[in-house]
Amino acid sequence: MPGMMDTVLNLGLNEDVVEALAKQSGDERFAWDSYRRFIQMYANVVLDMNTSLLEIQLEDLKEDLGIKEDYDIGGDDLRSLCQSFKRTVLEETGIKFPTDPKEQLWRAINAVFNSWDNPRAIKYREINNIPDDLGTAVNVQSMVYGNLGSDCATGVCFTRNPSTGEAGVFGEYLINAQGEDVVAGIRTPAPLNKFSLNEINENGETLEEQMAPAYKELQNICDLLEKHYRDMQDIEFTIERGKLYFLQTRSAKRTAKAALKVAMSMLESGAISEQEAILRVSPEQVEALLHPSLDPKYADHETAKGLPASPGAVSGVIALSADEAVELKEQNIDCILVRQETSPEDISGMVAAKGILTARGGMTSHAAVVARGMGKTCVAGCSALVIKEDENLIIINGHEISKEEKITIEGSTGRIFVGEVPTIESSFDDDFLSFMEIVDKYRVLRVRTNADTPKDTKTALKFGAEGIGLCRTEHMFFEPERIQAVREMIFSKTTDERKASLEKILPFQKMDFAELFKALDGKPCNIRLLDPPLHEFLPSEESDLKKLAELMGVTLSEIKTRVSSLHEFNPMLGHRGCRLGISYPEIYEIQIRAIVEAGLEIGEKGTSVESEIMIPLISTVEEFRLIKELALEIIDSKGDLPSNVNFKIGTMIELPRAAIIADEVAKEADFFSFGTNDLTQTTFGLSRDDSGKFLPAYVEMDILKEDPFVSLDYRGVGFLVEHATVNGRIGNPKIHIGICGEHGGDPKSINFCHKIGLDYVSCSPYRVPVARLAAAQVAIKSND
Amino acid sequence: MPGMMDTVLNLGLNEDVVEALAKQSGDERFAWDSYRRFIQMYANVVLDMNTSLLEIQLEDLKEDLGIKEDYDIGGDDLRSLCQSFKRTVLEETGIKFPTDPKEQLWRAINAVFNSWDNPRAIKYREINNIPDDLGTAVNVQSMVYGNLGSDCATGVCFTRNPSTGEAGVFGEYLINAQGEDVVAGIRTPAPLNKFSLNEINENGETLEEQMAPAYKELQNICDLLEKHYRDMQDIEFTIERGKLYFLQTRSAKRTAKAALKVAMSMLESGAISEQEAILRVSPEQVEALLHPSLDPKYADHETAKGLPASPGAVSGVIALSADEAVELKEQNIDCILVRQETSPEDISGMVAAKGILTARGGMTSHAAVVARGMGKTCVAGCSALVIKEDENLIIINGHEISKEEKITIEGSTGRIFVGEVPTIESSFDDDFLSFMEIVDKYRVLRVRTNADTPKDTKTALKFGAEGIGLCRTEHMFFEPERIQAVREMIFSKTTDERKASLEKILPFQKMDFAELFKALDGKPCNIRLLDPPLHEFLPSEESDLKKLAELMGVTLSEIKTRVSSLHEFNPMLGHRGCRLGISYPEIYEIQIRAIVEAGLEIGEKGTSVESEIMIPLISTVEEFRLIKELALEIIDSKGDLPSNVNFKIGTMIELPRAAIIADEVAKEADFFSFGTNDLTQTTFGLSRDDSGKFLPAYVEMDILKEDPFVSLDYRGVGFLVEHATVNGRIGNPKIHIGICGEHGGDPKSINFCHKIGLDYVSCSPYRVPVARLAAAQVAIKSND
Repeated sequence: MPGMMDTVLNLGLNEDVVEALAKQSGDERFAWDSYRRFIQMYANVVLDMNTSLLEIQLEDLKEDLGIKEDYDIGGDDLRSLCQSFKRTVLEETGIKFPTDPKEQLWRAINAVFNSWDNPRAIKYREINNIPDDLGTAVNVQSMVYGNLGSDCATGVCFTRNPSTGEAGVFGEYLINAQGEDVVAGIRTPAPLNKFSLNEINENGETLEEQMAPAYKELQNICDLLEKHYRDMQDIEFTIERGKLYFLQTRSAKRTAKAALKVAMSMLESGAISEQEAILRVSPEQVEALLHPSLDPKYADHETAKGLPASPGAVSGVIALSADEAVELKEQNIDCILVRQETSPEDISGMVAAKGILTARGGMTSHAAVVARGMGKTCVAGCSALVIKEDENLIIINGHEISKEEKITIEGSTGRIFVGEVPTIESSFDDDFLSFMEIVDKYRVLRVRTNADTPKDTKTALKFGAEGIGLCRTEHMFFEPERIQAVREMIFSKTTDERKASLEKILPFQKMDFAELFKALDGKPCNIRLLDPPLHEFLPSEESDLKKLAELMGVTLSEIKTRVSSLHEFNPMLGHRGCRLGISYPEIYEIQIRAIVEAGLEIGEKGTSVESEIMIPLISTVEEFRLIKELALEIIDSKGDLPSNVNFKIGTMIELPRAAIIADEVAKEADFFSFGTNDLTQTTFGLSRDDSGKFLPAYVEMDILKEDPFVSLDYRGVGFLVEHATVNGRIGNPKIHIGICGEHGGDPKSINFCHKIGLDYVSCSPYRVPVARLAAAQVAIKSND
Repeated sequence: MPGMMDTVLNLGLNEDVVEALAKQSGDERFAWDSYRRFIQMYANVVLDMNTSLLEIQLEDLKEDLGIKEDYDIGGDDLRSLCQSFKRTVLEETGIKFPTDPKEQLWRAINAVFNSWDNPRAIKYREINNIPDDLGTAVNVQSMVYGNLGSDCATGVCFTRNPSTGEAGVFGEYLINAQGEDVVAGIRTPAPLNKFSLNEINENGETLEEQMAPAYKELQNICDLLEKHYRDMQDIEFTIERGKLYFLQTRSAKRTAKAALKVAMSMLESGAISEQEAILRVSPEQVEALLHPSLDPKYADHETAKGLPASPGAVSGVIALSADEAVELKEQNIDCILVRQETSPEDISGMVAAKGILTARGGMTSHAAVVARGMGKTCVAGCSALVIKEDENLIIINGHEISKEEKITIEGSTGRIFVGEVPTIESSFDDDFLSFMEIVDKYRVLRVRTNADTPKDTKTALKFGAEGIGLCRTEHMFFEPERIQAVREMIFSKTTDERKASLEKILPFQKMDFAELFKALDGKPCNIRLLDPPLHEFLPSEESDLKKLAELMGVTLSEIKTRVSSLHEFNPMLGHRGCRLGISYPEIYEIQIRAIVEAGLEIGEKGTSVESEIMIPLISTVEEFRLIKELALEIIDSKGDLPSNVNFKIGTMIELPRAAIIADEVAKEADFFSFGTNDLTQTTFGLSRDDSGKFLPAYVEMDILKEDPFVSLDYRGVGFLVEHATVNGRIGNPKIHIGICGEHGGDPKSINFCHKIGLDYVSCSPYRVPVARLAAAQVAIKSND
């Protein structure tokens, strides 16, 4: 817990010792300044005094002397200041400042023990799941000074380069200085060795040259420490009169790239086991490896922040509509699509843009889900963003940005910058591939992907996906040639008219599925039948409605009447999912026919097909049965299936009632897939589209530890998931169970999925490696 | 199962027997006609033949003869017809029509046994929960004929008047006739006695006069049967040559009024016990007793049907807006408010109108809930209704109805009539009061009411409510003087502005609560803090928005911006309930202050106050804790409470997550109240406002046995209710648990509440007696 608990430096000083120290070091200022610091720190930590009174005295003194920096105060002035400090301590606390070093020591030890219960430490333990009753030790170290002359130095070093992971001692130091000076940045530290050279320190002389023996020793001990701790170390050292002291060592923070490099090279050298190597890289780091990120040197002060909806870092001019984005793309101009929120009509613009920025919507809003699916950078729900479409500009936190001006967004942090910020590229290299191969040896959970297109599928397969866990068929309906037929279908007045429109869609759907089956080459493909309410397929703009009326040969008012008759107060809880399939069986019929016919076509060509037909939004077993019968009828009508073509029929568990009656449903179903997005919405009674107004405050106020749309809520939603899993397996021991909500790519949620024994998780293509690693880590930890 | 299984009449006839019967009766036509009927019935029931071929022959014969009625066909023609029938049977079935009476009998017995599995019987058993493996007996009765001469007769009688319940044999008969003739309505039946006289049969001579000995015997045996079966009987009898035969007896269907009268008089006579008397009146009958209903003599062909949202039967001219309804009321003209759906803005119109008719919305839509609360007749969700506001007319199933024209609606059946239909008044009499007193001795569940006004509260108390189970405070915000302050509050930009607006509402709220406490006189009063999203308080019409902008001194565009910023995609899952109370604590603060100050004021005057402060829509225990702390602070700020004033703090369980974590919540809460409307919505993922589009089809298709908003879904929603009850009691054994959703007034749901051990149910005032009876019945049945 570095920095979380208290410490007292320079302990043991009193006026006699200070005089001696001044003499020994030949630096009176240094000696009295050390005493001044000790009094301040002791008063604060041990005597629990408000030390701002002392700060004020220090400031007043500098003002009287007409100087700006602490280190310009002379020895005599510091001596008087120390005496004044001690008087103030007496006045404020009623305690005479102790001169006996032993008394100082015992009291300090006590205070450090007590700091186990300071709010900072309590919070830190809470965040890191460290038990409160673990307790602490107190280290007592003798002080060493790196500033007793030119044979002294102080520095910070890593046992490897923390940016790249390359082997070799890496760090900086200052001659004749104390630790604080390195941090304060008053003097520019010099590189330890040539390996540590950079643009800023290149003029300094290296420790290797200046103090060869100490450097040699540092190098040896760095090796030793790394071997002992079996991890790359972050070390603070001081050289006092030529003698090397280690102040502190701990596992080093490192970039994603370094984490991977270190893990792989320590594994190669035999320093750590495969399991340890796997645990050394965090899932978040794997994610970072797959996407570019902003160069920290240039990305300092963001203009605003939104939700980190989909990772990556991109710059571009702003595009305020899908059409604009498409036009810019044609002119080869990078752009960011900026919208209040996106809708399926924006898909073409999302494809054309480098990234997406929205003012509304949460982590599972349309923009976020689609962007993650595409592996496209997205920052969502930026409340500081105002879009003035009619004025052709946007305002971000007060900054007006017109078209042609560039912005930069970073999807892993949600940061937004005006202008262009340089980025660091991703590193999807051999090291990464070998690491992931090792990872796969240890995981139990299978990892599939949520993908609707052959392109996404191929990306996901490259990332190691073992099949499709969720193919959302509705996205296939938005292609320009198809949406017209879909709209015709919606405006049909009879079942026959509806069937005629659907027949037009059949060849497209069949082709879609055939391509997916081909790409998957026998890996399972879970296809969800149409889910969204029909009104999502209708245009919302007046001009588009007019166009539609012309195309359909009906009046605008007829179109509007139909649109308004489809309006729902709570579309999330409305006429969608299998409810549509029951009201209009012809819709599901055409989809199932497309799946079955595509499967047979591909199967004939010698490619295996494992297709899962998924019925969405069931709340009763009767719904499932009805549609299953429809599906079986279509499958049976094709005669005996070839042995390399299989169709399974299962359902999404995405409503509390479906989870509750899982035992019954399981008797009828081949598989379950938890739709935890919707299940979270209904379990919490919380619309993801509307939650932006209060959910962030809820997390801030600690009402919710985390956004339940990001990390599965174990206690509530998890109860239902577990209930359904346990009872589903009782109802049908052979049932195959996975999860396809956004949680399928979240490491904490994956832990849960492993623990309750799901068969697989499914996530967007770019999260597949994250999920693979998380699944391996939880398997390894569970075996401990 | 009368009519559900098969029967074969006139069995035993063959040509020889028919000849003998013709001779004996002296009526050849009768004898051959009996044979003709037997062949038809036997072919249908026993030989499973499609008898339409026989029907056609009968029709052809009549056409050839140039006659219209069956009974005009002569004996000879019937004889030929019988022979032709038998030939057809042989051709169609390959079976020679059996002449041996024994063979006929055995085959008929078999067929009747098999009819246990006909679809009609299966459906009937399903509806009435009769087990399929119960099996049946087959009765073999010798035929008697009431048409062998003028010393024969046939009739139907009840042991009491089935309309009023008055004691005495009541029924009609025909001399020289068969049972069919009474039913067919060809001849007008005569009254059995003077007691049975009515407008239609008053010219007939009574059986008592015509066949005194048989009548006397009938009377004696009626008495005997009623005593034996301990219930009023519905009897079919035949007199053959002066001898009385009983064909059938069963418990008689009766009107609500008769059910009550019969139960009370049989109880008084000692024929049945109190428990039996209670079980003799159904909760639906109690409901009918409280409301007028349409006179069945005049209410034959409805124009359309909607949902039976709130009982009663009323006529009036149509009012298409709340203002119109109010104007008509001022002119003393009865009107029906006809709306697409109602919103809180329509309340004044709902109060003014005699009844409400809506085109959209389900059983728990705004119109339905508010109407039930008011005890006002309502038919909701009539899809055959089109409202043309600009043309000042409505169209019901093709019938144009202009203003000034009357319509009639019946809320217990959902029927809608063009024009005025006479009604039968309710009977809230002494018999009813004594019956309900007996009922209360047996029930375990307490019964409270959902009421927001002193008027509703007084109605409910008159009906036996034991307190308020749900006072919806938002309804109090819609009064004209208050809504302005509420809207100011919504448009406030700072907490202080918001507080200032709320201070204006405080005195009104305090007065509201004081009046409720006074009316309740110490009975518990559960008050729910503000629940709906803020946008519900804003006007929706452009003109009202303009008015509001003027009043608030802001531009229309500012108003519109605020309105659109409050827009939600799924308001049901949005920023409402305690989420509002957490975002704007000042709203709940003012409400709690109003409750506490009103309680203390009334307490001081010597009236006891038992107030329950209910926090809506919690999904986490932290939400509950936060608002509980706010409430405790306000209560504590008033110093020690007098002993006659109590405040409890609890929560609504209306989201699946709240039910799941009930054990934790219970540790903090004094009470739970299940909000099963919302819990049903979230458990099923089904918006009640939108469910009208497919829920009726779901019920029709048997996907759902019943509308889950009407009758609690035991398997799904009930699982959560039971889970929360069991775990809530583990978390806090003293917790008090009730239900306040619409299900609180539904007998089947009340059964469930009793079985899982809730403390009380709460329902709209007019359903309180229904709930009391249902609670007593389930308690009695559970003790069996």
